[in-house]
Amino acid sequence: MLSKPSVNRIDTRLPTGVKDFLPLKAARLEFLQNRLSEVFRRWGFRPVAPAVLEDLAVLELGLGADLREKTFRFDDRQSGRLVAFPPDMTPQVARIAATRMHDMPLPFRLCYRGRVLRHAEQRLGKERQIHQAGVELIGLESAEADAEMIAMSVECLQAVGAGEFTIDIGQIDFLRGILTNLPLNDQQSVNVRTLIASKDSSGLQRLLETLPLNDGQREELLALPRLFGGQEVLERAAQTVRNPTAQRALDNLHQVLDVLKAYNVERYVTIDLGELRGFDYHTGLIFQGFLTGFGRAVCAGGRYDNLLSRYGFPAPATGFSFDLYQLLLALGNTLDSCGDQTTDILLFAAGSEKAPAQKLAATLRTQGYSVARDIICRDHQDSLDYARRMQFRYLLIFDSDDPQLTLVRTSDGTQSRITSEMIEAGDLRL
Amino acid sequence: MLSKPSVNRIDTRLPTGVKDFLPLKAARLEFLQNRLSEVFRRWGFRPVAPAVLEDLAVLELGLGADLREKTFRFDDRQSGRLVAFPPDMTPQVARIAATRMHDMPLPFRLCYRGRVLRHAEQRLGKERQIHQAGVELIGLESAEADAEMIAMSVECLQAVGAGEFTIDIGQIDFLRGILTNLPLNDQQSVNVRTLIASKDSSGLQRLLETLPLNDGQREELLALPRLFGGQEVLERAAQTVRNPTAQRALDNLHQVLDVLKAYNVERYVTIDLGELRGFDYHTGLIFQGFLTGFGRAVCAGGRYDNLLSRYGFPAPATGFSFDLYQLLLALGNTLDSCGDQTTDILLFAAGSEKAPAQKLAATLRTQGYSVARDIICRDHQDSLDYARRMQFRYLLIFDSDDPQLTLVRTSDGTQSRITSEMIEAGDLRL
Repeated sequence: MLSKPSVNRIDTRLPTGVKDFLPLKAARLEFLQNRLSEVFRRWGFRPVAPAVLEDLAVLELGLGADLREKTFRFDDRQSGRLVAFPPDMTPQVARIAATRMHDMPLPFRLCYRGRVLRHAEQRLGKERQIHQAGVELIGLESAEADAEMIAMSVECLQAVGAGEFTIDIGQIDFLRGILTNLPLNDQQSVNVRTLIASKDSSGLQRLLETLPLNDGQREELLALPRLFGGQEVLERAAQTVRNPTAQRALDNLHQVLDVLKAYNVERYVTIDLGELRGFDYHTGLIFQGFLTGFGRAVCAGGRYDNLLSRYGFPAPATGFSFDLYQLLLALGNTLDSCGDQTTDILLFAAGSEKAPAQKLAATLRTQGYSVARDIICRDHQDSLDYARRMQFRYLLIFDSDDPQLTLVRTSDGTQSRITSEMIEAGDLRL
Repeated sequence: MLSKPSVNRIDTRLPTGVKDFLPLKAARLEFLQNRLSEVFRRWGFRPVAPAVLEDLAVLELGLGADLREKTFRFDDRQSGRLVAFPPDMTPQVARIAATRMHDMPLPFRLCYRGRVLRHAEQRLGKERQIHQAGVELIGLESAEADAEMIAMSVECLQAVGAGEFTIDIGQIDFLRGILTNLPLNDQQSVNVRTLIASKDSSGLQRLLETLPLNDGQREELLALPRLFGGQEVLERAAQTVRNPTAQRALDNLHQVLDVLKAYNVERYVTIDLGELRGFDYHTGLIFQGFLTGFGRAVCAGGRYDNLLSRYGFPAPATGFSFDLYQLLLALGNTLDSCGDQTTDILLFAAGSEKAPAQKLAATLRTQGYSVARDIICRDHQDSLDYARRMQFRYLLIFDSDDPQLTLVRTSDGTQSRITSEMIEAGDLRL
């Protein structure tokens, strides 16, 4: 048996906020990615693969202050230009659609997957490496397009086996409409938004008393922290809000909800009118997906009607993306049963003749089984220990002096005797 | 119909040597990746996903001068440390195996896919963004392990539909054994290697006359530029070479070829003893895969027995990786027939009732069809034009006033009439 090499401790830390994924979690990430890609494909979305690196000036055309600040940037020693690693793939897809696909008829349905990097507050232990998988629907301004994104998010969550979940919907123009009409400076406006977002009614009340607002304006703002919940929120909002931009935002949400009823997914939807999440490039409807019992969003998206014009091609658009690592954490144990985390067979060949064992392995592989050969010389008890620890389902013992083979189930050690002919005839059922 | 937005020319160049992939090529890259991953899985390899970013000092433990020089590095503004984007995934997988898996029994069979970045000579128009998909077999020093890598490469090439191809095998120790025993300084040694690698016999002869070598040594070196071709090369080499390290290298190649005969893949193998390709971390057997008629290698790999010890865990290892973009270029038109590049159905719904069309789309999707709904208001001739240009296979026209649907094949305009009941019963065959 191969002796165990000694291990010397060497400092091999990773930069903060980035991660390796070992086989168990890496297989789960691939499982999630593949399930999402399959939903994207079924809805007619086609993959694009944006460049790994961008010219900083070009990338920044598509980034607001929020993402610019989080962007990894450095000098490209070969060109002397500043380059950047994308903090988000939506601006990249927007650039590609605007500059390389503009001679194609709209709409475009595009999907992508990949890793982005964002600076994040280290003391919060936040990830800087984000595994995204998402879609962009470019060229449609109708509520049906927004609804398609939400219906797809629901189907994605069902496809990965999420149990209870909600899609939380907001509308950028609702709060923006109310706030831009008030006589507040930027800092005051930010303070008001922060208290609304944290649903701090009493704090908001105290703040509003210090601001130059009339009673009607105060009343409108004070209603906002309570404008979240079921779809009745829209009725309550309509009663308190008089601002026309905000009213149009409510109309838009009604239209989207109508389409979602046709999709039969409206029961997953909750409404939150008090928050402005999303990125600076968002306009109109935005949403986030949450699994019950897990505090962070697993997917997020929304409309961004002004982004493509920054690359010279004005077109409305909407989209969403999943954060695969958050999704993996949120799903937790429900992923235990997802496939591809074991190998079917470890083939142990006694005797010096290799060809028959290799032929057997090749035959099993063409039948779809995953098969590794135990090349190390060890006795078959050691092979069985190895097979168990490395999560093989079966140990198959081949001896060139024995016309039969022994198949050992690693979970309980059950043995059965089989023949090569059975395998070649495709009669093995594992 | 949605009017076409105007396009303004904006400078949106990418950094040199990196690329976006539009749907056609992106789908092909995914197809290649999935085919390779399936072969890796069948051979019992499990995925790992190394971090997107590394601490430069840690990464450099696993890089020779060749890859260090090509590494993208920059200051991490959050930690003040130098960080780097990996130029190759093998050192990352070695680090992970050495530092995070050392309590598991050997061997490890690991696979990965991802993008790496390497500085490359711009005047040669070389790619800096490389799409890798590969495997590492860690903990085995036997010739069987090397043969497994070569047999898997062959199976990978068959799985992606490569026609004629060869796996070109070399052995680092062969040339290294001969050269290290000669009384040459570094520069002289490099000059000799360069002439051997370019198979320039007459140049080599002229150079050797100026070097302090005896006749036996000159004769040995002069034989090297001709030591490439079929497996008879090993016999010719054995006759001319007296250096014991080089002789052991030949023995190793014989053993690997014996196993490859058992795998029945020896007909794909050619031998080249005059070249030292591979990276600085390579030891022993190295190989590259070539498609006939395409000059650049599509896959490469070999043994690296000293790499894991640099991370504190001495263990022999071998592996290989594909360059997916070179593979895509090499396969060219043979990829035309690979799937997933069209969408099955564009569903065009006339009338204002959305629910029946959405339900129909959902039903078709559960049957595995890819279906996009044409949300834009246009007449169905425009929809057909769109479907053709965007590579939909069928346009399905639904009218809430008509009990039947019209199915139009986009390739030739052939129409047929079908019913919703047919679709719901799963009787549609496209």
